[in-house]
Amino acid sequence: MRAKGATARLAALGRAQKDAALAQVARDLRASVSELQAANELDLAAARASGMAEAMLDRLRLDARTIEGIARGVEHVMTLADPVGSRGPMQRLPSGIRVGRQRLPLGVIAMVYESRPNVTVDAAALCLKAGNAVLLRGGKEAAHSNRALGAVIARALESTGLPADAVLIVPPGDRDGVRELVSLVGLVDLAIPRGGEGLIRFVVEHARVPVVQHFKGVCHLFLDAGCDAAMATRLALDGKVRKPGVCNALECLLVHAEDAERLLPPVLAALSAEGVELRGCERTKRIVPSVKAATDEDFGTEFLAKILAVRVVADLDGALEHVRRYGSTHTDAICTERVTSAERWLAEVDASCVLVNASTRFNDGGELGLGAEIGISTTKLHAYGPMGLESLTAEKWIVLGEGQVRG
Amino acid sequence: MRAKGATARLAALGRAQKDAALAQVARDLRASVSELQAANELDLAAARASGMAEAMLDRLRLDARTIEGIARGVEHVMTLADPVGSRGPMQRLPSGIRVGRQRLPLGVIAMVYESRPNVTVDAAALCLKAGNAVLLRGGKEAAHSNRALGAVIARALESTGLPADAVLIVPPGDRDGVRELVSLVGLVDLAIPRGGEGLIRFVVEHARVPVVQHFKGVCHLFLDAGCDAAMATRLALDGKVRKPGVCNALECLLVHAEDAERLLPPVLAALSAEGVELRGCERTKRIVPSVKAATDEDFGTEFLAKILAVRVVADLDGALEHVRRYGSTHTDAICTERVTSAERWLAEVDASCVLVNASTRFNDGGELGLGAEIGISTTKLHAYGPMGLESLTAEKWIVLGEGQVRG
Repeated sequence: MRAKGATARLAALGRAQKDAALAQVARDLRASVSELQAANELDLAAARASGMAEAMLDRLRLDARTIEGIARGVEHVMTLADPVGSRGPMQRLPSGIRVGRQRLPLGVIAMVYESRPNVTVDAAALCLKAGNAVLLRGGKEAAHSNRALGAVIARALESTGLPADAVLIVPPGDRDGVRELVSLVGLVDLAIPRGGEGLIRFVVEHARVPVVQHFKGVCHLFLDAGCDAAMATRLALDGKVRKPGVCNALECLLVHAEDAERLLPPVLAALSAEGVELRGCERTKRIVPSVKAATDEDFGTEFLAKILAVRVVADLDGALEHVRRYGSTHTDAICTERVTSAERWLAEVDASCVLVNASTRFNDGGELGLGAEIGISTTKLHAYGPMGLESLTAEKWIVLGEGQVRG
Repeated sequence: MRAKGATARLAALGRAQKDAALAQVARDLRASVSELQAANELDLAAARASGMAEAMLDRLRLDARTIEGIARGVEHVMTLADPVGSRGPMQRLPSGIRVGRQRLPLGVIAMVYESRPNVTVDAAALCLKAGNAVLLRGGKEAAHSNRALGAVIARALESTGLPADAVLIVPPGDRDGVRELVSLVGLVDLAIPRGGEGLIRFVVEHARVPVVQHFKGVCHLFLDAGCDAAMATRLALDGKVRKPGVCNALECLLVHAEDAERLLPPVLAALSAEGVELRGCERTKRIVPSVKAATDEDFGTEFLAKILAVRVVADLDGALEHVRRYGSTHTDAICTERVTSAERWLAEVDASCVLVNASTRFNDGGELGLGAEIGISTTKLHAYGPMGLESLTAEKWIVLGEGQVRG
């Protein structure tokens, strides 16, 4: 209710006021390194005691360098256009009224996330810039860090005349708390879960408010007959090798049967040379015998590791059918020289981002020109794909008349 | 699962194929008047036996005239542009990729509605034109009529080469069936309840799939200081008197205190002359003593009758505050000559349609230029306001490259 109470004031703020508050947040973060590190140290000590792996500890750590990065992220949000109040074209209709749409904030957004405390500030900055209040319910592991970050943000908001209730830290607890948070119909306008599949499924299962979902990314690359082998290799390597642990990494390579003998040897050799474990279908193994045999489970799996499933498909229809069956509506690319294949791929693949001759790794708010993203939606309602500031707003209809009635 | 199975074919259909199927639906409806009337007679007989009021019987009735109207509605949908495949501007980004968005169908839509069988055909036509499969779960009262309409539609789809599973009639039963229908995560992409508030709340409470909600319309008209009294009268009469039973009818009149003595007498006299029962605040009663005293409950009430709540507010801020507190985010209008008031009203009122100097009755898909509407959303997620064909689609990101990688 405190967050809801702040929404009217937040919706009426101009860009200058919001950017001034964000600038103050960035300044206060930099001025609070020791305070933040002290709080973070409590989380790190608890994590170490619980035996958390070093890689996870790294994600949890706040220090001068990571705090500088977080502050710069806030300053980057300042540079982005304010979507609130922007008005599309106004059309004059037969009745004489002029009709268009104008953007407004969503209201109260509940973020439910795990681990990394930088999400706390990133989400706060994006929600605030789009005129929303935000409830930040991070994980237990980062409880002290998030509370300290929330205190810094609250001070910055108050000192710049914004409602401190615009950004509220919800203390972590058990999942009953999450369930309650995402059941607050009339108070929470949108829930955004970010984290493991278990967390997201829990939120979807229990939410009564709208949820933007980001399930797994089982991304495909289809090598069409006649495509350029060098480009195919480049796209496969970039998708699989550079950052195998991210959601837009490549998980399955599909190859047109007509051209598999030409394409598979160089592409798979390049992947092997980079240490990728290849799991191929029978036809793949016949062409490149060193490949391991894939099971049906390998298709549709998000490996998040240097493992790639490989399958020879009869043709474009076979590739489309495979993606429909095993894909995750996240990101699917085609490598092709054929206009018809490219157009059919763009039209018929149901995924948040569909690419022609470009790496799956481009499905990212920054790379797609959004500036920053608060999440990637893999369901089509409200938003599909990376969500930037615009996805944190809605459009209302506006009508300008000179006294018209319907009669 | 049958509906889901039809989605890939439906998504790939061109406009010509969809329009040909719609033309056949319209023809087959006209050719099936006696078959449809026979089925409808069973519903009417049961309704009469249960003591249904005459007005409700009228809404349930199918005859040559109403069937002609339904067929013309289908033909009207043929004239509307096909949103599927339409592509927005493509932007070239620093990496060299070209990025844009392309519309695609949502997938499977579950309509849950009450009473009027024309909704069965309207919804089928709109969902089909937007490339979606639709599950139509109408009310018990119209069970035979809906089954017969579904059979006509299925024949028309099959005879034009479309999957008959694109439009499926779900037999009515108890609410457990509705609960199951709106819990089909992975099969149903969107649920649209249409009907009484009880039905909508039930769907929202039990849905696991996204829901577009249309709650009540408590629509306001604010008369600003200095506004034209004749225009104010016209807007109030049109909003309240022409069709008091619809969701965009006026339910509450707000008047700026500075000008209430000039504005209230003529406006309220005109409303009284049309038989409107006026329920006013203390200050209203002081100016027009014949007005009944309003209780706090009269504000925020959707009367759906010739009853109007009237309140004098201190100023524009008072009006905005009243709408925030008692409004339903449906439709709110201002009558004003002041640019600043108009702009603040447009910016600060959170409603699906915000109007300046036009009747609240314009919040309607046809009047706002959508051609036809499948519902009005009063929540901001996915759609806000009247939903036409575009709201039955989503946008995916598309990327055109020449082999770019992120590296």
